[in-house]
Amino acid sequence: PCKIKVKALGIAKKTKKVGKDDPRRIIHSLKVGFALTLVSLFYYVRPLYNVFGESSMWAIFTVVVVFEFSVGATLSKSINRGFATMLAGALGVGVQELASLLGDKGKPIVLGFFVFLLAATSAFARFFPHIKARYDYGVLVFILTFSLVSISGYRAEKIIELALQRLSTILLGGAMCIVISIFVCPVWAGQDLHNLVASNLEKIANFLEGFGGEYFEVSGDEDSGTVPKKDKSFLQAYKSVLNTKTYEESLANFAWWEPCHGSFQFRHPWKQYLKIGALTRKCAYQMDTLSANINSNVQTPPEFKRKIQNSCMKMSSESSKALKTLAMAIKTVTNPSSSSIHIENSKVAIDELKTAMDDALRERFDLLKIVPAITMASILMDIIKSIEEISES
Amino acid sequence: PCKIKVKALGIAKKTKKVGKDDPRRIIHSLKVGFALTLVSLFYYVRPLYNVFGESSMWAIFTVVVVFEFSVGATLSKSINRGFATMLAGALGVGVQELASLLGDKGKPIVLGFFVFLLAATSAFARFFPHIKARYDYGVLVFILTFSLVSISGYRAEKIIELALQRLSTILLGGAMCIVISIFVCPVWAGQDLHNLVASNLEKIANFLEGFGGEYFEVSGDEDSGTVPKKDKSFLQAYKSVLNTKTYEESLANFAWWEPCHGSFQFRHPWKQYLKIGALTRKCAYQMDTLSANINSNVQTPPEFKRKIQNSCMKMSSESSKALKTLAMAIKTVTNPSSSSIHIENSKVAIDELKTAMDDALRERFDLLKIVPAITMASILMDIIKSIEEISES
Repeated sequence: PCKIKVKALGIAKKTKKVGKDDPRRIIHSLKVGFALTLVSLFYYVRPLYNVFGESSMWAIFTVVVVFEFSVGATLSKSINRGFATMLAGALGVGVQELASLLGDKGKPIVLGFFVFLLAATSAFARFFPHIKARYDYGVLVFILTFSLVSISGYRAEKIIELALQRLSTILLGGAMCIVISIFVCPVWAGQDLHNLVASNLEKIANFLEGFGGEYFEVSGDEDSGTVPKKDKSFLQAYKSVLNTKTYEESLANFAWWEPCHGSFQFRHPWKQYLKIGALTRKCAYQMDTLSANINSNVQTPPEFKRKIQNSCMKMSSESSKALKTLAMAIKTVTNPSSSSIHIENSKVAIDELKTAMDDALRERFDLLKIVPAITMASILMDIIKSIEEISES
Repeated sequence: PCKIKVKALGIAKKTKKVGKDDPRRIIHSLKVGFALTLVSLFYYVRPLYNVFGESSMWAIFTVVVVFEFSVGATLSKSINRGFATMLAGALGVGVQELASLLGDKGKPIVLGFFVFLLAATSAFARFFPHIKARYDYGVLVFILTFSLVSISGYRAEKIIELALQRLSTILLGGAMCIVISIFVCPVWAGQDLHNLVASNLEKIANFLEGFGGEYFEVSGDEDSGTVPKKDKSFLQAYKSVLNTKTYEESLANFAWWEPCHGSFQFRHPWKQYLKIGALTRKCAYQMDTLSANINSNVQTPPEFKRKIQNSCMKMSSESSKALKTLAMAIKTVTNPSSSSIHIENSKVAIDELKTAMDDALRERFDLLKIVPAITMASILMDIIKSIEEISES
């Protein structure tokens, strides 16, 4: 019993964490429960049941499968489902009629042939990256509906009536999902993408901000400008940026489906975000290399460190400021004008550093451990520049 | 009409490419078609239809939804589906009975309450990373079946008979998918993961192999050992390594479900592959930083280049060889013994380089552009070492 208690406590803790990480998840769960209870009214309310009969099943079915976390995902699935059902239903009826012309013997063969053909084609179509990203679910529903309609028609003669009944329940279920997901505490994939990109920029900015202090082990120096944080989490935060590609892409795909909301138009240039995201990741890769240097830092002679400290600190803090202004500009959707000042400042710092390096070289130090930081910063300059170009959205 | 022709040609070309990239995709499509045609026999063959009736629909349904590209994915979905259906069915019948005790008025309220409760709980459960990765589909089927059973039972009194019928068709459909996906040209997620990890190692090895030649612009020198390739694709290939994390993880999840096949046991240590994958990605990040140096290479004074050329070339080619032996060892599932020789060799090269650098420093060169390569290589040593430790699977 003690073991069970420990396990239950563990699950409770996890549950709390999942809920705390994003409170919208709890709301989403309640929304799903609400939608499903609402749709089950089809069964309880007699007049509705008399109209739709057993087809009400399809409404429940639609709600369970279609209701997703973000508005974009729900919309994408509903629209896919609606169109795929219609298309497949029509095709199924057509094939059914065609097969009927061939008499009782030929019918199963023709139907079997068409099922095979369309199933294989659809399965293959799902490998196309473009279809996979946007219409995957639609293709799945297409195969399903087509085989159900064309085959079941072999028995039921009232196929068109049944098909219409099912289609209407599916559309009803889909519409309900859309309405609930848009009007009850909506979760916009576009907004999420927007925030994600901005917060990723901030994360790498935080890393840069803290990096100088960490590298030179400054502890509250007045003249350095950067007070090292006791909390070292900023050194790890950039790591989450490294692997956001898939997530960003799926968000952008969902966002593509969303109508205008907040400050975003329909057909907002979501691809711009992916570009910024890619550049941010590139910075993060370089930081990954850089952070390995913090650990191998001990061998560097302190006299040399002192020489380059000022300009390096300035470089990292200025580029961090530039990134932060950019992140701010994305968040507030304004033009990033003040960031160029910081970029200029950090360029000046690079020049200063070069002079300091020249001086230092006269004294022969082991450079192995320091120079990467500089290269990194200069590469960063290029990246910031390109980010600047892009962030015109 | 001309436009349509161009478009059709474009699609044909794409189709060819998708098929060529992985010919197993074509086979998979045919398998799906075959399975679906087979399952539609339920409808055509009268004795079978008489037993299962309209429930045959669920077999088709199962095949369409469950049949996935790799064996692991199919197994995972089938097993999830089977267990979720059983559990949800049993629970549904239980709730149904409970609700019946409360009379005609209380029944819809109790049922509605339970549907809401379980739907919300399941929707929330899908946010747990562990459940999301492995049982996502099962949870979905659970909500679906539970609401269908508990609600439809409100009308149909023969609920248990119907449930058993449905369950047997679902199990039959699932079993057919499993059999076909295992015995007809199987695609093992485990094998794919294995190959992916090995080929990623090879890709970064190729990059290292070519990097030396590219950086020092050697053109077929006899004494350098590396003949620069005309094909520059190796400089881009490592980029595909950067974003494989999600893919590797899903493969590992699917592989977890697979029975023993080829040289893999059930419960093979798939997590080891993820570790190697993570380290490989770390190397790739560093290469991304490194490759930025190729472009800014022009400013480096040629005299300095000549000084460090030999040891740098040796470092990159030896570490590349070490990586290649490791990749080979993974492929053939042997112990990587010869790779340690190459690692030793490259360590010697590092020492040589350090001396060369010391010499060079006396002559005052602009080091900015060269040193990262060295740091990179020394970090790489650590990584190779840790890979060596891990690759004992």
